[in-house]
Amino acid sequence: MPSAETGPACPLPAGEGDTIQLAHGGGGRMMARLLETVFYPAFDNPALARRHDAARLALEGPVAFSTDAYVVQPLFFPGGDIGSLAVSGTINDLAMAGARARYLSAAFILEEGLPVETLRRIVRSMRSAAFTDGVEIVAGDIKVVERGKADGCFITTAGVGSVLAPTAVEPQALRPGDLILLSGDIGRHGIAVLSARESFGFEEPVESDCASLLSPVMALLEAGVALHCLRDLTRGGLASVLVELAQGSGLELRIEESAVPVRADVRAACELFGLDPLYVANEGRFVAVVPAAARQRALELLARFPVSAGAIPIGSVVAGEPGRVIARGALGQDRVIDLLSGEQLPRIC
Amino acid sequence: MPSAETGPACPLPAGEGDTIQLAHGGGGRMMARLLETVFYPAFDNPALARRHDAARLALEGPVAFSTDAYVVQPLFFPGGDIGSLAVSGTINDLAMAGARARYLSAAFILEEGLPVETLRRIVRSMRSAAFTDGVEIVAGDIKVVERGKADGCFITTAGVGSVLAPTAVEPQALRPGDLILLSGDIGRHGIAVLSARESFGFEEPVESDCASLLSPVMALLEAGVALHCLRDLTRGGLASVLVELAQGSGLELRIEESAVPVRADVRAACELFGLDPLYVANEGRFVAVVPAAARQRALELLARFPVSAGAIPIGSVVAGEPGRVIARGALGQDRVIDLLSGEQLPRIC
Repeated sequence: MPSAETGPACPLPAGEGDTIQLAHGGGGRMMARLLETVFYPAFDNPALARRHDAARLALEGPVAFSTDAYVVQPLFFPGGDIGSLAVSGTINDLAMAGARARYLSAAFILEEGLPVETLRRIVRSMRSAAFTDGVEIVAGDIKVVERGKADGCFITTAGVGSVLAPTAVEPQALRPGDLILLSGDIGRHGIAVLSARESFGFEEPVESDCASLLSPVMALLEAGVALHCLRDLTRGGLASVLVELAQGSGLELRIEESAVPVRADVRAACELFGLDPLYVANEGRFVAVVPAAARQRALELLARFPVSAGAIPIGSVVAGEPGRVIARGALGQDRVIDLLSGEQLPRIC
Repeated sequence: MPSAETGPACPLPAGEGDTIQLAHGGGGRMMARLLETVFYPAFDNPALARRHDAARLALEGPVAFSTDAYVVQPLFFPGGDIGSLAVSGTINDLAMAGARARYLSAAFILEEGLPVETLRRIVRSMRSAAFTDGVEIVAGDIKVVERGKADGCFITTAGVGSVLAPTAVEPQALRPGDLILLSGDIGRHGIAVLSARESFGFEEPVESDCASLLSPVMALLEAGVALHCLRDLTRGGLASVLVELAQGSGLELRIEESAVPVRADVRAACELFGLDPLYVANEGRFVAVVPAAARQRALELLARFPVSAGAIPIGSVVAGEPGRVIARGALGQDRVIDLLSGEQLPRIC
């Protein structure tokens, strides 16, 4: 198997190599060559090597299953791209259920005219992200639609993982007195995508936090930290996750807004665009709700990984009013946090 | 749980109910309401009811995993729609690996402006197809892209199933002397989609063969028929499947072209459009390669199901030239069958 860094070697035949054509999705010779030259060399593994419609998996114990479609625009942004996002996003969704991702599927919807080199870069990025976490991409599909009927490239990944958590990791497991830990500063992904899209020309572009959360979650599980709930912050940001946890648990969540880390450049960009950082998207941040007694152990473990080195407590679960989230401001004033009624930034993932 | 036939009851609030808006994909209140009013009532099951990012599955034995993206245009065609296709297509891919589909995920990419009623029809059709085969849709995602950046609705399903076949069902299992069975007449799906798209106004439109192949495959497996390989005929038609089997097995496949059933209306449409029926898409047909001794038993079993009532032998596997497919015509002349180099009919699935 080639290393994660090197790309596939064999070129497409002349005339098929520059841009994606409808025939690349037709089930014929051009599709076969695209698979042989772009996809199989990158996602090399025994299951794909069988060239079958379905992969046979080796799995023990309880199984978790998740999917996400990725339509981020632009396809490449500071700190990541649609490929790394599509792989780590689904790995993260499984991690949030206390599961280690083992196998991914990847279905591509390509727009006629997409440069094949762009597709190669995306596929390499996927390979690298999967390789890092020991995940195999074992099933896939390619569809091509006419120019103007899609937007370059959409990717849907689904993931199957082994559940390692001894009890269900879900909002219903929250208890009054639990501590809410946040894994790091928020809002970078949304601002990174927004600035890449709008070409605001910041001197130092904000990099997305896009990253796999597998390592810190596995460390918490292996150490036996009681994880009542985990949730990664994506669309709708920290605020939406807190509301979902409050509603799912029927409890109240209270956070100290001044405890939530927001980098100065992200805060400045939010002020410029009129955005509330609590609602801005992230792709490499999560909330862990743990018993108060697990505080020190959990923070020690999270501090060991770059992706969660900035983890801190931001609040707690209380009996209070079922489904309510209260954020206390720096001056002591409380505000109720709710889901956004509209759309803040479309297509950030 | 409502029956498979009735639709979800609760309406969306006024102003959110007519067409899909970007905010329906934003992770906020409108997305939550779309889930509560359109998706959860249709795909009601315990895993979805946990409202988590990943579903926990109950699975025993070896697991098969598959995915497909669906971009068929138009979304509704005689005999089916993108929803039924997305469900039965992935059920079929798993069946072709000798597996019974158990759980599906469904990720939707919606174009801003899509009528919500269209989405409801699609979701109901998916529910009905899943219900019929005892499959649960346990994980999902919704993304919305701006007007003109997609084409109404794309759906990617992934499926997890239990492998019931005692040995690997794959091209490598083919042996010289094996019989090639075809489950029925070919070419209806491609012609149905083409005529729906082009509004040719046939008096009696050809209906797609779009259907689940689970029942006949399970019957073959339960009866202990040795299934060397199964392959459903989709893009690229019967011809492409035969080529893949020949190449995957390193053997030669020979078929009698006159034994391949093509309905008179499909044949007429193929002549009109200049299409070779061997390459036209199907969505409810498959090829089973079995030992010659299993011929009678397999045909008896296939005859019991409407979807495979027309099953017949069309040829056999021979040592011959590795990877070659030969079709013998009605007049005894041989022709070599190869993959199409271009695209016959884009977006038929």
